[in-house]
Amino acid sequence: MIRQAIYHKSDVPFAYPLNKDELHIVLRTASTDIKRCYIFYRDRYDWMGKFKVKEMFLTQSNDLFDYYETTLKLNKKFVYFFYLISKMNEKVFYTESGFYEERPEKSFHGFFQFPYICDMDVFFAPKWTSDCIVYQIFPDRFNNGDKSNDPENVRPWGERPEPTTFFGGDIQGIIDKIGYLKELGINAIYMTPIFLSPSTHKYNTTDYYKIDPHFGDTQKAKELIDKCHKNEIRVIFDAVFNHCGYDFFAFQDVIKNGKDSKYWDWFNVYEWPIKTIPLPSYEAFADHEWRMPKLMTKNPDVQEYLLNVAEYWIKEVGIDGWRLDVANEIDHHFWRRFRETVKKAKHDAIIVGEVMHDASPWLYGDQFDSVMNYPFKNALVDFFAKRSIDAKQFNTIMTEQLMRHMDGVNRAMLNLIGSHDTERFLTMCNGMVVRMKLALVFQFTYIGVPYIYYGDEVGMVGGYDPDCRRCMIWNEEKQNLKLFNFYKRLISLRKENEELRYGTYKTLYARDGIISFKREYKGKSIIVIINNSSKEHSILLNGVQGKIDILGMGKI
Amino acid sequence: MIRQAIYHKSDVPFAYPLNKDELHIVLRTASTDIKRCYIFYRDRYDWMGKFKVKEMFLTQSNDLFDYYETTLKLNKKFVYFFYLISKMNEKVFYTESGFYEERPEKSFHGFFQFPYICDMDVFFAPKWTSDCIVYQIFPDRFNNGDKSNDPENVRPWGERPEPTTFFGGDIQGIIDKIGYLKELGINAIYMTPIFLSPSTHKYNTTDYYKIDPHFGDTQKAKELIDKCHKNEIRVIFDAVFNHCGYDFFAFQDVIKNGKDSKYWDWFNVYEWPIKTIPLPSYEAFADHEWRMPKLMTKNPDVQEYLLNVAEYWIKEVGIDGWRLDVANEIDHHFWRRFRETVKKAKHDAIIVGEVMHDASPWLYGDQFDSVMNYPFKNALVDFFAKRSIDAKQFNTIMTEQLMRHMDGVNRAMLNLIGSHDTERFLTMCNGMVVRMKLALVFQFTYIGVPYIYYGDEVGMVGGYDPDCRRCMIWNEEKQNLKLFNFYKRLISLRKENEELRYGTYKTLYARDGIISFKREYKGKSIIVIINNSSKEHSILLNGVQGKIDILGMGKI
Repeated sequence: MIRQAIYHKSDVPFAYPLNKDELHIVLRTASTDIKRCYIFYRDRYDWMGKFKVKEMFLTQSNDLFDYYETTLKLNKKFVYFFYLISKMNEKVFYTESGFYEERPEKSFHGFFQFPYICDMDVFFAPKWTSDCIVYQIFPDRFNNGDKSNDPENVRPWGERPEPTTFFGGDIQGIIDKIGYLKELGINAIYMTPIFLSPSTHKYNTTDYYKIDPHFGDTQKAKELIDKCHKNEIRVIFDAVFNHCGYDFFAFQDVIKNGKDSKYWDWFNVYEWPIKTIPLPSYEAFADHEWRMPKLMTKNPDVQEYLLNVAEYWIKEVGIDGWRLDVANEIDHHFWRRFRETVKKAKHDAIIVGEVMHDASPWLYGDQFDSVMNYPFKNALVDFFAKRSIDAKQFNTIMTEQLMRHMDGVNRAMLNLIGSHDTERFLTMCNGMVVRMKLALVFQFTYIGVPYIYYGDEVGMVGGYDPDCRRCMIWNEEKQNLKLFNFYKRLISLRKENEELRYGTYKTLYARDGIISFKREYKGKSIIVIINNSSKEHSILLNGVQGKIDILGMGKI
Repeated sequence: MIRQAIYHKSDVPFAYPLNKDELHIVLRTASTDIKRCYIFYRDRYDWMGKFKVKEMFLTQSNDLFDYYETTLKLNKKFVYFFYLISKMNEKVFYTESGFYEERPEKSFHGFFQFPYICDMDVFFAPKWTSDCIVYQIFPDRFNNGDKSNDPENVRPWGERPEPTTFFGGDIQGIIDKIGYLKELGINAIYMTPIFLSPSTHKYNTTDYYKIDPHFGDTQKAKELIDKCHKNEIRVIFDAVFNHCGYDFFAFQDVIKNGKDSKYWDWFNVYEWPIKTIPLPSYEAFADHEWRMPKLMTKNPDVQEYLLNVAEYWIKEVGIDGWRLDVANEIDHHFWRRFRETVKKAKHDAIIVGEVMHDASPWLYGDQFDSVMNYPFKNALVDFFAKRSIDAKQFNTIMTEQLMRHMDGVNRAMLNLIGSHDTERFLTMCNGMVVRMKLALVFQFTYIGVPYIYYGDEVGMVGGYDPDCRRCMIWNEEKQNLKLFNFYKRLISLRKENEELRYGTYKTLYARDGIISFKREYKGKSIIVIINNSSKEHSILLNGVQGKIDILGMGKI
């Protein structure tokens, strides 16, 4: 037995409560190393009580690890436990203080303990996320619904964008396309920032309380959200709290009044007076982006200001959540206060961080509900678009990602395949739509929230920013309608099958370019088989009968 | 290479900032499996920059794992990194998205990232803890300094205690013994609760704002703390916030007014009216302790009440910290608020949780500074007192405990060998003082805060509660003065050698009943060799010259 692979810890994501009396437990072992695994558990204060025994079941497996899981129904909120792990001629007891050949006595001091299920610490993502399909909109490029509010220097729709080009997209444009979004089938939109800002992307906020007039006004935002809500579409705004814009009132005050400004400590000024070239004399986003002075969220006044903003837009226009820009460069302390503020203002608002790497430090339950799942995107790019990793590697990466998080977090993850900060997926596929379709099948049948970057559904292409931010193609002759219909079909499939929305996930096969997995819910299951190779393969899956061809793309 | 053993995560305790520009990094591998390990790192926003390379060094080793560590000095607060791990004919690159045979390209999306060092998230235990030696006092049993405040039913000093016996110990008694404590050499005392309560242990608080009159009053507490501070002794109070006493005003109001009480939701009442037998009709500590109704810390009013208590005693009498009773049954959310309140009231106050198992979920930096280190106690009991584990197992348990926490946490740990909730160590040694002495050498030369349970230093014995709470022996003829002097000598040794207080820890030898380790600081080191067996052994340690016999107990 490879003891170094055996791991449990009585904390997220290896032990966490699902509710007041159910505790979810995960144990990791080396891949295909052990035969059986049992958990022995007992109420902590029932000193003389017998241990109950439960077999744990293999839920995820890859070429490194196997994961065994179970959920304990507890009479009381506190529990002692240990494991018995066995293979052919070997058995070992695994406890918090290590491995023992003999079963620990009742008075043993090294049991694992989950000391108490505290209501306050039980994590719930908003319930609606399980049913959610998100559509990301970059407002300047989605649709121009009101020419009267266009910037002066607006360029013709469809021209290749430069970093500073304006195309006149606006909130009215989005309202006008609610029908389109309904037809596609999405039920949530996330918009990149819409507050007053001189840039086209608006990540340098001038005024957190004002909608950019080229996009509309507060009334127009309210209209968008009301109409979306009437159409059962939720709306997520973008919170750019890591930094403000150069024109933000507090920073302007600091420029004007220097050290005497009452906002001097909202920023980290290295040297007075403020200068912007050759490098900013103050801390800025990405070190050099002088247009984006970093906000000192350790300052309680800054915290108050930003938390009020977070609350204001929920109460004022009724948004359903916030996406948090550069979330990984702001302290955890601030995000915990943010969660409290947001959940108090709207208990089922979603909090989605932008974290491009392992986001687990923000996803233990005390900060975010979800993140934009870039590691998911990266794996899909490598496997489906570039075919630079094989099915086994892909499965290892995906299951390791899953096991980093609580199940509730995985179900709330925004599983994107591209965004305004990446090359478009079809471009990464070198234009091969079939590769993208395989990736989409995976995306829409996997655990977590499918996420569409505007235009992907009609076959838009584009390299890195600004090329991935081209104007939406509305001319049906230029749209890939087959792809659009494929998206519609996948969305329907997901909506019609609760296994895909609420089911467990288990890999069945990961070899020869083929990835196959099962989604199971209430005794019913859907099996997905994706052949991501250029060859025909016959595979044998236990318990699968007959021939199925859901999407007309392949055979079993 | 055992890949399943290789582990890093960009979060506590595998990556954490030591200050604004130093990031501490830990990588785990299987024991004696690899030969070399390098970290490649680069500023996150220096897209085209070269990676710097640094070799990582083996710091801890046991029969399961090796731990490699380094500290990166960062120009910027953000960093990308990956590892190169090699053995004889094998090398592998280890990244956040797994293992690769080839070095990842600059544009690779799976680097480990520590995205930003946020001041707010840098953990510091109070600086004084490194120099600290704690002495625990159970006030009713330490010294009776004022007979006029004795309970009516007080029993003669030295009689065997029952669960409800009073002996008349009080705050004046502690004041009278400051000279004794100074002579011993300790510099912090932790007292079990002293607030108004009908019990002898006072863990069922009647009034959090009133010192129990049998112990003294607020003025007397202030006098104790002032006199302690003049003698450079810090004072830690006991915060019993998991539950109150039956007589607590809010619970009495609930008994009286039932559901109409404005405090009804400070508790979890299962059934009205309140009853206590056969089982309490409300949630209570350990499920059945009707004298201890559980406080609902999820209720903001309860939070406010308890946080005010925490702040009050810091401001009113100047205590230096809180020890938190049953800390593991209260929500993390409350403890985060508690930390904020306490640190604001006194920036270098210490927060010590009572958690008897792996306490890491409370020690990520956002909640406690330290805990009463019961896993440390358990290992010392097994190795030194009972000799039920061998040196190898002992070393594995101890180093696994160390590697669960940040270095700053390990240095603040209260390393006890007994308390009012355990059998006394000498009793667990079956009275064999030599075994206890070996344990004490370990305790006073190890990393973390040595902790003395009153009376251990004069050879007191006792089984589980109430027997471990006997009256302090003040009659010198009945004290083990040799043991007392041994304690004094160990304390001096620790005070005189900063290696023991501030140094790194590394195991040198762990076989044949012998544990040997090195404490190193600023180029100087102390090597400790403990022969915990009945046999003489000769061992060879690299780099050790000559014969040393610090404590007159053994030979090299």
